[in-house]
Amino acid sequence: MTYRTAIDERLQAVAEQIAPADPAYRAEAQRLLDNKTKPLGSLGRLEMLAADLCAMQRRIPPLTEKKRVVVFAADHGVVEEGVSIYPQEVTVQMVANFAQGGAAINVLARQAGADVEIVDVGVKGDTAAMALNHKAMNGTANFARENAMTDVSLNHALMGGSLRAGAAHQEGVNLLALGEMGIGNTTSAAALLCLLTDTPPEHAVGRGTGATDEVLATKLSVVTDAVTRHRRPDLPAWEALRAVGGLEIAALTGAMLGAASLRMPVIIDGFICTVAALAAARIAPSSRDYMIFAHCSAENGSRRVLEALEALPLFDLGMRLGEGSGAAIALHLVEASGRILREMASFEQAGVSTAQGEA
Amino acid sequence: MTYRTAIDERLQAVAEQIAPADPAYRAEAQRLLDNKTKPLGSLGRLEMLAADLCAMQRRIPPLTEKKRVVVFAADHGVVEEGVSIYPQEVTVQMVANFAQGGAAINVLARQAGADVEIVDVGVKGDTAAMALNHKAMNGTANFARENAMTDVSLNHALMGGSLRAGAAHQEGVNLLALGEMGIGNTTSAAALLCLLTDTPPEHAVGRGTGATDEVLATKLSVVTDAVTRHRRPDLPAWEALRAVGGLEIAALTGAMLGAASLRMPVIIDGFICTVAALAAARIAPSSRDYMIFAHCSAENGSRRVLEALEALPLFDLGMRLGEGSGAAIALHLVEASGRILREMASFEQAGVSTAQGEA
Repeated sequence: MTYRTAIDERLQAVAEQIAPADPAYRAEAQRLLDNKTKPLGSLGRLEMLAADLCAMQRRIPPLTEKKRVVVFAADHGVVEEGVSIYPQEVTVQMVANFAQGGAAINVLARQAGADVEIVDVGVKGDTAAMALNHKAMNGTANFARENAMTDVSLNHALMGGSLRAGAAHQEGVNLLALGEMGIGNTTSAAALLCLLTDTPPEHAVGRGTGATDEVLATKLSVVTDAVTRHRRPDLPAWEALRAVGGLEIAALTGAMLGAASLRMPVIIDGFICTVAALAAARIAPSSRDYMIFAHCSAENGSRRVLEALEALPLFDLGMRLGEGSGAAIALHLVEASGRILREMASFEQAGVSTAQGEA
Repeated sequence: MTYRTAIDERLQAVAEQIAPADPAYRAEAQRLLDNKTKPLGSLGRLEMLAADLCAMQRRIPPLTEKKRVVVFAADHGVVEEGVSIYPQEVTVQMVANFAQGGAAINVLARQAGADVEIVDVGVKGDTAAMALNHKAMNGTANFARENAMTDVSLNHALMGGSLRAGAAHQEGVNLLALGEMGIGNTTSAAALLCLLTDTPPEHAVGRGTGATDEVLATKLSVVTDAVTRHRRPDLPAWEALRAVGGLEIAALTGAMLGAASLRMPVIIDGFICTVAALAAARIAPSSRDYMIFAHCSAENGSRRVLEALEALPLFDLGMRLGEGSGAAIALHLVEASGRILREMASFEQAGVSTAQGEA
């Protein structure tokens, strides 16, 4: 375990419960897939995905029917440096849009047959009656000047994420897709990526919601300064999160740890979620076994963070919206893999001849 | 028009009705997408797909609700050369499996909310009560020795495809996904690809259902011989189909022409369907406007044929099953794009601030 004792004891207990996925289930699932009426291996990554789900859930076929998208929302003090072309109030306005069902994530989750849960872990503004309240602060502090969070607020956000994963599990959710909303959060995620890896800031900082050249230069400068101040060998993920992270990013990390402790597959969205996944994998390496990476976002740092996780995402459609939009789309693929294993006939059942010279 | 007068007059009439997609609808759709509550362009290819659908259907938002997968099945005389590790009777056995709902395409279409139609355009065996009967021959002739089809059987297969597209249109289908079944058909498709482009046989011939090294060498030799015999500059697609094509491949080509004439978007599956698409695009270039390419199959020639069509497929999951399996999965993405345009709130509707300095 690489986390520090400053992590809340309850979260430590969660992290310690995380066991690796079970390869025996993966092997047995592949054996069954090899008997389905199709050439060996011809469903490619869908087969691997099905076998991975079995190894995570310890059951064959895996359960994929009940799906949920959890979106964590929070604000970022660093926005006062001028790192986004959108004003900060867009965070709370988008939470209202989520509540009214008009955002991309609502549309995509509806199509996927997933419910949507919005959790305020630090929005600067009133979200009562629009979101679940797990507010740790009214937005982070500006990490250009001070740590983004206190120990208490970081633990609150981490635990908030873990609790929502636990609630999903209790409510029978089989597949948990995660997303985020927070004006300024590509700046925070880029800084975090630099602190968790040796990525140079110019390969981590991107245009986010569409930064102009001027705004991009500001982002790069802010991230470079913060990384220079905080970078040190073996900086624990927890300290990196506290220094430059976002409350929604910490909540995502907590949700991934919580889900992994409950053997629940997690569908990871784009750049920001993937950086949160890297933090989770640093805190508890076996949590990586429960992560399914939806897509390669068009945001600059995406490939770097995916590489750091040795992750091969399912698709690459040039998306860079966040909210869990890519994860919501990926739910269909993940569910397809489970259905293949559950619903396809075997050669014997269907009375179909196998290949020449094969059993 | 590049097709020869030997094409049936009814199919000529279909091909002549094909008009290019309408760019005015694409532009208006993009204008609406730019007002949705998301950063400009942040849904990447989903936005382009939505705008393309509008340009095809001449309506905004596009219709995506009623979906159908049509699978054309036929046998191949060239199988007697030893080009497949599966015996020929697997074609008719798989048609039975489709009818019983146990094949991958059944599972994936069910999940996508699409109905499945199986059309026998040349299966060697009795498929009565298992498939729609549009049999042109009991399998093609062995193209290693003679033309695969006669003029009459080729026209019958092409028209069969076009008629099924017409029936789908009449029955209110909005999105038509196409697939195929036919032991031996990667050999036929590889030869066709070579005749339609300057692809050398070794870049067109692949392992199909899992050819051993020995079977692969036989495939390559059979394709090389046939291509040497038939290759000539400006060989019409129609003649190439007759020489080395499959009845299900011709039916796919006909279905794509029929769908394009009716302004119906067609979702193209992997290697074999994409070769059929290339033939359609050669017969009527504007039919290309109605094609959506689902995925890059793992079959050897896939990249070549996609390049010949300047097609960028939606995903690449190492699939190589056929049956329309990739197209069925892509239906979800195509439908998602339509839903984005139809269901997402605009900035004004949601009361969300736009980017600084933008309208």
